[in-house]
Amino acid sequence: MSFSPLIQQLVTALRCLPGVGPKSAQRMAFHLLERDRNAALELSSALRLAAEQVSQCQQCRTLSETDLCQLCASSSRDRSSLCVLESPMDVLAIEHTNSFGGVYFVLGGHLSPIDGVGPDDIGIQQLLERINEGEIKEVILATNPTVEGDATAHYIAEQLKRESLKVTRIAHGVPVGGELEYVDGGTLAHALAGRRLL
Amino acid sequence: MSFSPLIQQLVTALRCLPGVGPKSAQRMAFHLLERDRNAALELSSALRLAAEQVSQCQQCRTLSETDLCQLCASSSRDRSSLCVLESPMDVLAIEHTNSFGGVYFVLGGHLSPIDGVGPDDIGIQQLLERINEGEIKEVILATNPTVEGDATAHYIAEQLKRESLKVTRIAHGVPVGGELEYVDGGTLAHALAGRRLL
Repeated sequence: MSFSPLIQQLVTALRCLPGVGPKSAQRMAFHLLERDRNAALELSSALRLAAEQVSQCQQCRTLSETDLCQLCASSSRDRSSLCVLESPMDVLAIEHTNSFGGVYFVLGGHLSPIDGVGPDDIGIQQLLERINEGEIKEVILATNPTVEGDATAHYIAEQLKRESLKVTRIAHGVPVGGELEYVDGGTLAHALAGRRLL
Repeated sequence: MSFSPLIQQLVTALRCLPGVGPKSAQRMAFHLLERDRNAALELSSALRLAAEQVSQCQQCRTLSETDLCQLCASSSRDRSSLCVLESPMDVLAIEHTNSFGGVYFVLGGHLSPIDGVGPDDIGIQQLLERINEGEIKEVILATNPTVEGDATAHYIAEQLKRESLKVTRIAHGVPVGGELEYVDGGTLAHALAGRRLL
């Protein structure tokens, strides 16, 4: 037995959400239809509005429906320090630490020749132009601590060699609050190599 | 730092889905906006269509966008056997067993005086009228094996006492494939009380 066509279509469409399998999609569809039609309509219009109107901040490439995002438009940020990130979610992660007052640049991915993602796809040109404006004194490369993220960071550092600015990479090491026993070998090796005087 | 208004609205709207907390809602919103805008638009229209057009089958009260659902409209079902269920999801669960060929009646809940849910709210009147038509020979009460489900089953059985039909309740017992050790006491007690000759 199958669902009626409209319900089936809804169940299928819900599968596009990350982490939602066939069973959860069913549960979501029936929950909305049985208990919360208003929420379904609100979600429908929120999806349409966001998908049609949210674009990129023209300065930092994060998701934003205005030309300049909140952070780029703010007058209280330190414009001499630029943090380069892979995704808009990372901006939030760093903002939540309250330990960075500079501005951001979102690549929207990492270099991945195998998938055909080159420098042009992640806005390297735009990043270099931004840096050439001269206001920026330090570039913090905070791409993910993965092979691709590291490669991307190194590529960007290479491009910036000629410029007279400080280029740094976020530290690799032991996460705060964890137990050494459970830290993987690669991370431990990085933590040892990066040891500091107390 | 907060999201831009449209993204925030989308994150909030996604929270209406069962099992979706603030963190998953964020992840879903960014996933759709960064990678899959078409899927977001499709989901938007599937939600609107379903929320606006899916109604109840006029015979069995399951969710359906047509007056009669697929099962009620089918000519190959045994109309002398009626299975009474709490929700449309339960219809699927029973259909998937391939062990029932009759028709269904979906209450859409259970009696719950504390929440103000009385017989009228779960279609008891419509159920009685359906049974009075005379075609039905057996009513299988398959409400959930919970206190409220049991109470609802007993209430319906009480209403049907006068009629000359077979009223049954699905069996409580040990789930197939489990280990006795892990079965709860109430279920074990039911399994013992309901023991059968081999």
